[in-house]
Amino acid sequence: MSLSKNKIKYIQSLKDKKNRMEHGTFVAEGLKTVSDLLCSCHCQLIAGLPEAIKQINLPENVEEIVLATEDELKKATFFKTPPPIIGVFYQPTANIVDLDLKTNLVLALDGIQDPGNLGTIVRLADWFGIEHIFCSDDSADIYQPKAVQSTMGAIARVKICYVNLFDFLSEKTGIPIYGTFLEGKNIYQTPLAGHGVVVMGNEGNGIRPDVQSLISEKLYIPNYPPHRPTSESLNVAVATAIVCSEFRRR
Amino acid sequence: MSLSKNKIKYIQSLKDKKNRMEHGTFVAEGLKTVSDLLCSCHCQLIAGLPEAIKQINLPENVEEIVLATEDELKKATFFKTPPPIIGVFYQPTANIVDLDLKTNLVLALDGIQDPGNLGTIVRLADWFGIEHIFCSDDSADIYQPKAVQSTMGAIARVKICYVNLFDFLSEKTGIPIYGTFLEGKNIYQTPLAGHGVVVMGNEGNGIRPDVQSLISEKLYIPNYPPHRPTSESLNVAVATAIVCSEFRRR
Repeated sequence: MSLSKNKIKYIQSLKDKKNRMEHGTFVAEGLKTVSDLLCSCHCQLIAGLPEAIKQINLPENVEEIVLATEDELKKATFFKTPPPIIGVFYQPTANIVDLDLKTNLVLALDGIQDPGNLGTIVRLADWFGIEHIFCSDDSADIYQPKAVQSTMGAIARVKICYVNLFDFLSEKTGIPIYGTFLEGKNIYQTPLAGHGVVVMGNEGNGIRPDVQSLISEKLYIPNYPPHRPTSESLNVAVATAIVCSEFRRR
Repeated sequence: MSLSKNKIKYIQSLKDKKNRMEHGTFVAEGLKTVSDLLCSCHCQLIAGLPEAIKQINLPENVEEIVLATEDELKKATFFKTPPPIIGVFYQPTANIVDLDLKTNLVLALDGIQDPGNLGTIVRLADWFGIEHIFCSDDSADIYQPKAVQSTMGAIARVKICYVNLFDFLSEKTGIPIYGTFLEGKNIYQTPLAGHGVVVMGNEGNGIRPDVQSLISEKLYIPNYPPHRPTSESLNVAVATAIVCSEFRRR
């Protein structure tokens, strides 16, 4: 059995958010990401080279498995280099009922636009044991091919929810809400609780004013040496990494 | 005067490394990056909308200034959204004669392939006051459009040299050479000198064995909580950021 033209067309159609929403599915490519997702997501379709399929632990919840040729994978892939395996997975519905922000640390992303940044943040959240990310409704879609790829499989372990961020944070009374600002306190010298919400803002505009008003702890990553002319800011994934590292170091 | 077809063709030709090498030039786009570069690099050509040209402090070393239309900039840009201004700059020849590694901290990049990662590393190096980056000869070219863009202007302040990394590091006797490894020492608990070389490796393969053999201090960024199943690694720009933050925090 081979990867039919119709299936290639279906996979390619999932490049568009509209189609991903309609089908409730998304595409993952490569052995690592597909393997990781098979542990956590219901799988609609696996298409791969015979030797790649052999390397994968196939659980029972895979609806269809198709052996594909390199040429077929080349037509189906979203990237320049075709992967040995492609999977179509159902988007998980994040269950956040039992999340206690008095003991857990979570990230909130306010309008992150670049899918590579979003995927990289999911990957580093996974590294630092942050299991929930709340994205404002206008953030990049984590199921976009480039975002999925950038997570390097972490998308299988981190729960990602799209919410009205202002409403979400408004309900979190008594919980520390952190954000980074040029006028914030030196993060290296500020006590940090091991729990609460860390808000990171859009690449160009930072955190929106209404969300800013809900932040209880303003932090700053100092440049070095202080007052030296330098870049105006750090890349958002880089800044998120430094903040998470500071929380987990202590 | 407008941006001629020939000049657009010339700018577009600089997408290729071969042409950049031949002319010794590279392209920067956008007000921030162009402004920053005008402070440090000799400029061959500035093309921009009249209102953008007005916003720029034009030093005397600009060889040619051309008013352009949006349509012309659309044809000249490497990106989806045309910038208000484009500059062609001469590649600086990094002067590293007076670099003392007994007082300075520098980065060495072993085969970084992604231009976005490279640019992001230059930007964060600038933030943390690291003024020199040594790249192995096979690393991505910092003058590639996507890399220039990712530096957000930091390319104007950080000196970047392409070297034979093994030879370069071999000569650095008595200097601490750091690298990150899964079997390294917990970076949060390891004393770090404020000087020396931090080596970061290729996205997929890490640091090459011959370069590894020259590393005197193996570090590890611990995941959290320890021994939890997690991502196998961090994105290289993210890992570089955490290492630099740890050096500068102390």
